[in-house]
Parts: sequence; C-alpha cells; structure tokens
Amino acid sequence: MITYNFKTRIRYRDIDKMGIVYYSRYYEFFEAARTDMLREMGLAYSDFEASGYALPVIESHCKYFTGAKFDEMIIVKCDIFEKPKARLKIEYEVLGEKSGEIIATGHTVHAFLNKKGRACRAPKHFLSIVSLHWEDK
Amino acid sequence: MITYNFKTRIRYRDIDKMGIVYYSRYYEFFEAARTDMLREMGLAYSDFEASGYALPVIESHCKYFTGAKFDEMIIVKCDIFEKPKARLKIEYEVLGEKSGEIIATGHTVHAFLNKKGRACRAPKHFLSIVSLHWEDK
Amino acid sequence: MITYNFKTRIRYRDIDKMGIVYYSRYYEFFEAARTDMLREMGLAYSDFEASGYALPVIESHCKYFTGAKFDEMIIVKCDIFEKPKARLKIEYEVLGEKSGEIIATGHTVHAFLNKKGRACRAPKHFLSIVSLHWEDK
Amino acid sequence: MITYNFKTRIRYRDIDKMGIVYYSRYYEFFEAARTDMLREMGLAYSDFEASGYALPVIESHCKYFTGAKFDEMIIVKCDIFEKPKARLKIEYEVLGEKSGEIIATGHTVHAFLNKKGRACRAPKHFLSIVSLHWEDK
Repeated sequence: MITYNFKTRIRYRDIDKMGIVYYSRYYEFFEAARTDMLREMGLAYSDFEASGYALPVIESHCKYFTGAKFDEMIIVKCDIFEKPKARLKIEYEVLGEKSGEIIATGHTVHAFLNKKGRACRAPKHFLSIVSLHWEDK
Repeated sequence: MITYNFKTRIRYRDIDKMGIVYYSRYYEFFEAARTDMLREMGLAYSDFEASGYALPVIESHCKYFTGAKFDEMIIVKCDIFEKPKARLKIEYEVLGEKSGEIIATGHTVHAFLNKKGRACRAPKHFLSIVSLHWEDK
Repeated sequence: MITYNFKTRIRYRDIDKMGIVYYSRYYEFFEAARTDMLREMGLAYSDFEASGYALPVIESHCKYFTGAKFDEMIIVKCDIFEKPKARLKIEYEVLGEKSGEIIATGHTVHAFLNKKGRACRAPKHFLSIVSLHWEDK
Repeated sequence: MITYNFKTRIRYRDIDKMGIVYYSRYYEFFEAARTDMLREMGLAYSDFEASGYALPVIESHCKYFTGAKFDEMIIVKCDIFEKPKARLKIEYEVLGEKSGEIIATGHTVHAFLNKKGRACRAPKHFLSIVSLHWEDK
C-alpha cells in the first residue's frame, strides 16, 4: 500500500451557510491531496499530462460525518490499497488536525487514458514508481 | 416515485484543462437540481431552513461516463424512489440535451436535522408534501 | 450601446458563513451574463474559440452594496458602452429581482487574442455583429 | 506598512480551458493570503467573527498580466499601506515563485461591521495590533 498525509486549512470560500464546508469542496481537497501524493512519489501530474496521458476521475464518493469549520486545519490521508491496472483507486480520510476526529471518508477511481484519449493500462513508468513506493501492510 | 428535470448550461468556470466539466462541479449541479425539485413541490429549502430544520448531505456519489463541454445544455434528472424516513436519497442522471447521451449518474443521501441540530425523522409537513406528489412507478 | 439582462438564482454553493454570496462568485455570474449576451447577439464564445480566438479577462472589478441571499433571483444587467477596439469593456449591475435593489456593480475588460495567442484588434466579424446590435443611447 | 507573503500551489480545480487560472480564483487566493496575514499578526478572523465583528469585502479589483499554470507555486504578496479607519484596504501582487514574474495585481477594500451588523470604525484591539506590526516604509 501507499499512504500519504496532506494538510490544508479551511478557507472562507469553502464554508456554507451552515458554517461548515460545502459538500463538493471535499473533492477539491481530495484532488490536492492525491496530486501532492503523486508528486512526492515522483509522478508529477503535470509531467504525466505533458507526456500525453491523462488520469480522469470516473467515480467519486464521499461520506460526511461532521463538518470541517472555518480556519480549521485538516489532514487528508490518501491510501492506495491495490496496485493499479486499468484503473487507480484512491481512498481518503479527512481528519481534524486538532481533534483527530474523522470528518469525512471517500474514494476516487481513475482511468488511464493514452495519447489518443483511449482507455489503457497504467503506463509502465507509472507502475514501476508505484512498486518502488509500495509497502506491504 | 418523484421525478424532476433540471436544465442548466455549462459555464467556463466549470471547465478544466481537459476541456470538460471538473469532477466536483456535478455535485453543484445536483444541488441546484434537487433544490428546484423541492421548491416546485412546495418545499423551498429556504423555508425549510427558516423553520429551523436542515437537510445536510451525508453521502454523495458520482460516476462519470463522458465529460460535459463548455456552453452545452445539460439535463439533470432527479429521482426519489423511496419515501424518506430518517434519510432522503436522491438519484441523478446527467444527460446532454442535444445528444441525449448519459454524461454522469449519481446520488446524494441527506439527513434531517431538527432545531437542536440533532438527527430526526422527516418532518410531517415534508412527508405529506412528498406523498402529495408521489407517483407509483 | 448594447444592453442585456441575465437572470439567475442564488445557490447554496454560492453562500458563505455570513449568509450572503461569497465575493468572488459575482465574477462567475458576470461570466454567465456576458456569455449569454454574446450568444444572443450571434457571437457564441464556443464558436469564437473554435475559430482560434480568445477573449481573456485582463481586468475585473466589483463593488458590493448588499449581499444576495440564498434562493434569491438576481438580474445581472450587462452593458457595452464603447465599441471594442483592442479591448472590450463590459459593465455589470446586479439587482435583486424582487427588491429591485442594487446588490453589486462591476466591470470586466477583455483583450482579443489571435490564433497565435497574441493581442490583436477585435476581429471584423465581431465588430460587424456589435455594430448590428448597437443602439445609440 | 504591513507586508506578508503567502505561498500556494495552483490546483487542477483552478485551471480553465485555456490552461490558466480562471479569473475569479485569484480572489480566493487573496482571501487565503489576507487571512493568513491577519492570523500571523494575531488577528485570527475566526476570533474576530466570534467576538461579533465582521470585515466584509466592499470592493475588489484585479489586473491579469499572465496566467498562472497548473501545479505552479505562486506567491501572493499582501500589503497594507494605510492604517485602517472605517475601511481596510489590502493590496496584492501575485508572482510566480520560480519565474519571479508578476501574474496579477489587485486590491480588496473591507468595511468593519459591529455586532449589530452596522458599519463601524476599526475596533481598538484591531488598530493596536496593526500599530504593533506597522513599519514605516
């Protein structure tokens, strides 16, 4: 498995009338978290795109337990539990940094697209870097 | 069941680098669609909130089949298949108005919160209006 | 001058903790308003882009008088007071549909970019359509 | 004057079809930058709100020179050049961290609102902290 902790602060723009983060915003945090995880591994998404590939989201899911508040620091824990083949699944856990409380959990599933925009298997370079960072649980 | 079609146009702000709608934006379309559906039924969410209740999202899900494009008109079909008890589930289908093609499908699950912010069953007024509009499939 | 009224409803996603529209969201309403104005004139921005041109914003400004509320209908009045040369300036007035009250005013300034991404004068086709719709005040 | 540098990374959600940051997103970066500046000074906006005050934006402005790209690190330099009275003006300069190039400049003007939601002068506590950090240019 591969695991990564991303930290961010909740901004005013994220907060709705109820005083908590608007529900779709967690997906933006997921994006930032997985992009930083991949970059840290040596898989900058900008390089990935520059080489002609894409990794669009084909499924997204989130469960909300409590709402993150304005100015709170949150941790988005990302996990890859299965080595990608044609698809990459990333799981997320959003925690309050101070409270340690679980705020939300979710996942995204991504497809690999080649230079022609067609679904393909994970590129070898991608897989070998994933293997390099893989830790048995 | 209750069904409702919401129509909206894709804006530049919704489109990402790939030239298609950014994945979290569909949840914003879902919000607009369900709010209009409830208002049409006589359940304006602003009234619902004014009377002390809330209906926060506790789960959201979306599958993406193809990406909506800039300036395209989309239809978000909302369905309630089960009368709400402690929770309300709404299902969505996003279609290209012109193409008729399915762009995405998803659902949201909502909890009812009373004036004290505690989970409660669907208020009677809410249920009776749902019953009023209910159609057997 | 050219004038156009765009109508939209305020959504939950637009509202912040203070219960009013978050300040940057008005610029999204401006985008929707000017895009619809241009499309109505026969200048669909998607066609404009497809023909290789772009019309990026080089300046934006907004003054906020009162805050639009959740579920409120607003009117965004767009005005072009000067025929474009190298730049196009659009002015906006946001009004509550019911109250008639001015919520915000603003403007955006746009540059014309040609197929090479370089600043250019307004294309002839663009200018002739503007002239077609021009009304002396 | 008071000056502060805020650093952030451009995310996929910020990027539009042209491959650059969507114009309204800079205002979100401005919000993050000024909130962090104030917190660093000892003026956490969450405390400010908790004490009954608010500091809504009454004017916003931005000029765009070039577009920030996906995954780029930007610096948002915030400056307060005048001690606030009834209003607080904050100026911004957005720079590419690597390029050093100016991407955008802008400002926001804020009003002070008291517990009754009425415009008021800057609270004494606010002013004394501003004075504490003030540096003559």
